[in-house]
This record gives sequence, structure tokens and C-alpha cells, in this order.
Amino acid sequence: MGEPRKEKGDTRVPPSLVRYELLHEDASGTRARRGRLHTPHGLVETPIFMPVGTVGSVKGVGPDDLLTLDAQIILGNTYHLMLRPGDDLVGEMGGLHRFISWDRPMLTDSGGFQVFSLAEKRKITEEGAAFQSHLDGRHILLSPERSIEIQETLGADIIMAFDECPPSTEDRAYMEKSLARTTRWLHRCVKAWSRERSSLFGIVQGGLNKDLRKAHAEQVCAVDLPGYALGGYSVGETPEAMHEGVAFSAPLLPRDKPRYLMGVGTPVDLVTCVEHGVDMFDCVLPTRCARNGLLFTSEGKVTIRNATYAKDPRPADPACSCYTCRNFSRAYLRHLFVAGEILAMRLNTLHNLHYFLGLMKQVRQAISEDRYAAFARDFREKARAQEAERTKSK
Amino acid sequence: MGEPRKEKGDTRVPPSLVRYELLHEDASGTRARRGRLHTPHGLVETPIFMPVGTVGSVKGVGPDDLLTLDAQIILGNTYHLMLRPGDDLVGEMGGLHRFISWDRPMLTDSGGFQVFSLAEKRKITEEGAAFQSHLDGRHILLSPERSIEIQETLGADIIMAFDECPPSTEDRAYMEKSLARTTRWLHRCVKAWSRERSSLFGIVQGGLNKDLRKAHAEQVCAVDLPGYALGGYSVGETPEAMHEGVAFSAPLLPRDKPRYLMGVGTPVDLVTCVEHGVDMFDCVLPTRCARNGLLFTSEGKVTIRNATYAKDPRPADPACSCYTCRNFSRAYLRHLFVAGEILAMRLNTLHNLHYFLGLMKQVRQAISEDRYAAFARDFREKARAQEAERTKSK
Ligand SMILES: [Zn+2]
Ligand SMILES: [Zn+2]
Repeated sequence: MGEPRKEKGDTRVPPSLVRYELLHEDASGTRARRGRLHTPHGLVETPIFMPVGTVGSVKGVGPDDLLTLDAQIILGNTYHLMLRPGDDLVGEMGGLHRFISWDRPMLTDSGGFQVFSLAEKRKITEEGAAFQSHLDGRHILLSPERSIEIQETLGADIIMAFDECPPSTEDRAYMEKSLARTTRWLHRCVKAWSRERSSLFGIVQGGLNKDLRKAHAEQVCAVDLPGYALGGYSVGETPEAMHEGVAFSAPLLPRDKPRYLMGVGTPVDLVTCVEHGVDMFDCVLPTRCARNGLLFTSEGKVTIRNATYAKDPRPADPACSCYTCRNFSRAYLRHLFVAGEILAMRLNTLHNLHYFLGLMKQVRQAISEDRYAAFARDFREKARAQEAERTKSK
Repeated sequence: MGEPRKEKGDTRVPPSLVRYELLHEDASGTRARRGRLHTPHGLVETPIFMPVGTVGSVKGVGPDDLLTLDAQIILGNTYHLMLRPGDDLVGEMGGLHRFISWDRPMLTDSGGFQVFSLAEKRKITEEGAAFQSHLDGRHILLSPERSIEIQETLGADIIMAFDECPPSTEDRAYMEKSLARTTRWLHRCVKAWSRERSSLFGIVQGGLNKDLRKAHAEQVCAVDLPGYALGGYSVGETPEAMHEGVAFSAPLLPRDKPRYLMGVGTPVDLVTCVEHGVDMFDCVLPTRCARNGLLFTSEGKVTIRNATYAKDPRPADPACSCYTCRNFSRAYLRHLFVAGEILAMRLNTLHNLHYFLGLMKQVRQAISEDRYAAFARDFREKARAQEAERTKSK
């Protein structure tokens, strides 16, 4: 506020608005670590899972629900918000925190990933990504500078560098070209970044190619930033390939900065990638599955529309203490879902988010107690057995 | 429990499981009255508005929300619940209160109204109403006995007699025939009623025809029941005609029993019909309008999708203290609605129900303070002025 405004184009090591505090490293033979993010909107205990608030709400629940769930940090999508209601409007309304009534930490992505996966007639040039809005066909150019401008207007605590996430079907030549451009884009992001309110994280790409990953990690981490992310995982490859990739590339990121694995994943993915040293995750899986009636429980997945549950008086997850499980039977959840009642969306979402956030609480506890290797192994074994059982009973 | 089970067919004056306590009659020249319902699930302060939980949930909100809103009593629909999930299932799950996790008072309608308005190929005979389910085409007979059986299985505190609500287009001859049958059905309901847990209310029909209303009220009120309802209003007639009808027929009901006006209505309807001595109301208006983006406010109706509100930082209703108005701008509510976010449904519904329930709180206060005539007159004048303003600005 009273401090001198930083000159645009100042490429000196920026002051970290978000600071990572490494609390403890697991001593049971994994790379898992307990940490803490200090942000302008408060603390985040890591490893953490971030619910996704795509278009200005975490689908199915309100900020009151998120507080009850003790969600520590949520994610907003630059691509969706720039199109509707528009970053200028959110800015005029006092920023995204105020607009959606959320005063805990928030992260926005750069918009790049959605441009490449949702927009029509997209064209990537050195300048940025030109595309047509999937809502109204409007022609838009999203450049590194524009992405940073939008994200700073939205005002999240953590903002992401504008990058390309090239499809894994691209050949090596394209990958190399893309990675070099993403690095140039990173430098343009850093230059555009005002450093006033939002902390910029860099993104390492490179697909499943180890030497490309390594080279790109070096380039990205050469820029001193408050945090680093791994992009380009969970985009179609097998879980095993993804886990192997993360096992290789997470340790390439600095030990004293938060490591964020973008768009991941399933409970097993989270547990496994924490093992490789990841601190932050985001994924639409718990919220999207909830809306489709798929519940994650301590007993495995529950497809709530199944006739099996029509008269099942048990809660979705007998081991769960969420609002849904404390108050409602599977029979009622099935009824709501089959009848298309809106409440089904909220109750299912509350449960799934509670499951994901609760899992991360167990993860943090296991790390603190130096028993993460056993925790992760047991978790995976249980999940495998539950899936086998589930497939068999089909 | 330990009491001797009543013989089916016992037509003696039943013990009132629901008891009406008349607390105060307005002394400012209206028939408005403050009362209290004592029910197996607690007290209800009257006059009261009952949110409608059609298919086992008050659309858009959860029981937690309803408690926050201090909803005292909600309504369930026999027709919808008998078709899905089925009364037998709800019974097996411990009754409707337990199934939907609501331990405050509840009322169920008889199913008659929905059979006549929703079902296909319905045919009314002396036996009851034969129809095909609008969900799966199943052939079903809903008789007075069956309606009472279903309602007692659901286990609401208040259950309604099975009646016919004849369309106002029917001629006098049909009306007379229908009313006589509804009276015979009432006697069959009373005979079928176990008097164990649920209190049966009778329903007076007769459309807008005063002598038919009077005659039917005499027949229905000749049966000593814990409460009485007026049916057949707000089914297409003008508000003025409805108000005149209720002004005539509400006083025909006993002074020492609760009077329930079914399916009504707008804020002006509620305020006006309380003036004529009505104690209980139910209507889908606040919840249905909320889902369509129409908000009831102290400043008149707000159609939240209007572009006018795109950058409006004010709450939906600046005079409102609901969760929605305390936390969100019209701009955000508009954005959620336009983007089709589920949260729009919940936030709008929370506000509208808060408005209706808050209005009834004001109504009760004004009666207690013997200033109901002025309250009702001022309320109607303000509403008229707001509507005129709204129409002008269109
Ligand atoms: Zn749960
Ligand atoms: Zn409000």
C-alpha cells in the first residue's frame, strides 16, 4: 500500500507474497512433506487438495458449506471468468474474493489449459493463444500479459503462469518448440506481474518425456518464484505412467518452495503423488462425480443410483462425519438423485469434498508421524481390493 | 405406545393429537388471530407459511437451511411420494420425518389435488380416483382409505382428507355431486384414520359459489376434527375473487380450530387472507420463483437475470438479513443465474423463503399489537405502488 509501486518490467527476484514454510519431511522413506503456505488471506496446511470453483462457485455448494468443510483454499478458472461475467466486472465488484464471498486463500489458473481444451478455432502463436469463446463465438487473444492482467484483476493469492499444455500425441519436435515458447511466455509473465497482491507460480511442462521435463524444470526454476507447478499430467496417460512421471519430476522442483500438481486427481493419485513430494492438488473429480452420483467412501466407490441402495438405511459412508452422512441414508440420497432433486447435488458434493479434504488431513497426520510409506501402501492396497470387489459384483 | 389401539371404524370424536391454542384476536377490526399449534413434533406459531417439500426435499435447500430459516413446519406431497420413492419404502425407512431428516412438524396433503392436476387418464368414481402415474404409466387407484393409509405411513403430524377439487369451469350440477361425494369421502377418511400419530384435517370445497361453500362447510365442520382447510382457491380465479371468497368462507370454520388455506399464495394473498382469519398457508411460489430467478423483496419483485443488475453491488434486498443478502451482491446472483450454477437455486430459494417466513413473523407481531388492519392496508398499498413502478419501468 504505502510501498513504492514496482516498475513493470522489473525482473529482479520478486518479494514472495506467498511464503512456503517446510514443517517436516517424512522419515519413513518417502519424499512426502508437511508444510504451510502463508498467504494474504491466511494459512494453508499442506499437502492440500483445492476444490475447483470453475465459474465463480464450487458447483453444488456455497461458501458457507466450504467453511463447514474447512476447505482451506479454492481454485477459480481464468478462462471461464474472463468470458462470464468478465474480469472487468469482477474487478469493479472488488475482486473475486469479495464477488464470491470467500475470504480464505484462492488460486487462479492462467486460462491456458481451458483455451486448449474448450475453446473453438484456437491458434497458438508466439504472441499467445487466439480463440473463439465457446459461449458466444467472440474472438479473443489470451497472451501471457493478458492472463496476468486478468488474474491480478481477479486478485487471487496465487496466480499461474500462462503456458501451453501440448497434447501427448505431439511429436518431440513440437514438444521442444512448445516448451521453449512456454519458457519465453514465463519470462513475459514475470515481466507483466505487478507483484502487488498475487504470487506467481511457474509451470513445468514436458509430458512423459524425462529429458524434456528435466530441461524445462531447469529453465522454469531458474526464475525465482514463490512456487512451482507440474502441468501436463493426468491428460490421458495411465495412472502408472503419471505416477512415474511425477516421481521423476517433483524432486526437480526446489525443496523450499510449494509444489503444485495441476488437475490431479483420484484419491490414489493424491496419496501417491504426495509420496513423491507434491504439496498442492486441484481436481474437479470430487465435485463432478458427486453431481453424477458417484461417491468416494472409506468402503470404496458408491454409485448411489444403484437399486441396491433403494432401501439401504446406512449413510453413504459409515465412517464419515460429514453433514450428509450424519443425517441421511443411502436410500434417501438415491431417491433424491433418481428424482432429480437439486439437494442431491449439494449433499453428494458435501460428502465427496469432505472425503477428499479428510483424506488430506490423514495424509498430513501420517507425514507428521513419520509413517507415510505405510500409510500410502495400505491406502493403495485397500483401494485395489475395493475396486476388485466392485468389478466382481457388477 | 402403551395405549389401547383404537378400533378402525371408531367414529367417535377423535382425540386431537394436534391442538390449536388461540392466543389473541386482532382488535383493529380484522379477523386476524395469533395462535399456536401443539404437535407431536413441537410448536407452530400461527399464522404460518409452510414451505413445500414436494418429492422429499424443499427444492433448492436442505433441512439445515430450513432450520437456519426457522421454518416451523413443512409440507410433503402424498401423490409424488407414493409414486417415488413409494410410501412403503418411506415407511420401512422409519417415516418421512426420519427419511428426510426433519424433526419439526410436517403436513402431507391427500394426493387428490395432484391426481387431478398431474396424473394421466384420471377417472373419478365413488370409490376414488383411478389414474396413471405421470412417471411410468402405472395404473393406480387412490381412495380415501388408501390416501389415509399412505399419509399415516408417511407419518406427518397433520394429514389431509381426500377430496376432489373440481375445476371452476364445472357447472353447478357437477359441483353439487362432487361436494356430496367429497363429504362421503371425508366420512370414509375419518373411519380409516387410526388417530395414532397423525391428525386429520377436513377440507371445505365449493369454488366461488357462496351457498355451496356454506353448505359444504357445515357438512365438513359437523365432523369434529383437529383442523379444517379451505380448498379450491387460487386455481385460476382473480386475486380479488379469491380474497372475497376467503373473506366469506374462513369465518364459516370453527373459531377454536386452525384454518388452513391450501395452495395460497402471493405475499398480498397471505396478508389479506390472514385478515379474514386464516392461520396456515402453503405454496410453491417462493421456491419455484426462486428457481426461475424471481426474488421477492421489500422493494418489490426483482428479476435477477435482468442486465440492470449486472454490476449492482447491492444485496437482493437491502432490508433483508438472510444468508444470501448478507453475503452476496445482485451482480453475483445474476452471474450465477445466467451461468446456470446450481448455487443460484439455493441462494435465491434461501432469500425467498426468508422473505415469506419473515413476512409471517411481521404478520404475527402486528396481530399481537392490535394493528393488523393498518399493517395489511399499508402492505397492499406498497405492493401496488411497487408493481406499478415495475410495470412502468419495463
Ligand atoms: Zn460423508
Ligand atoms: Zn435476503
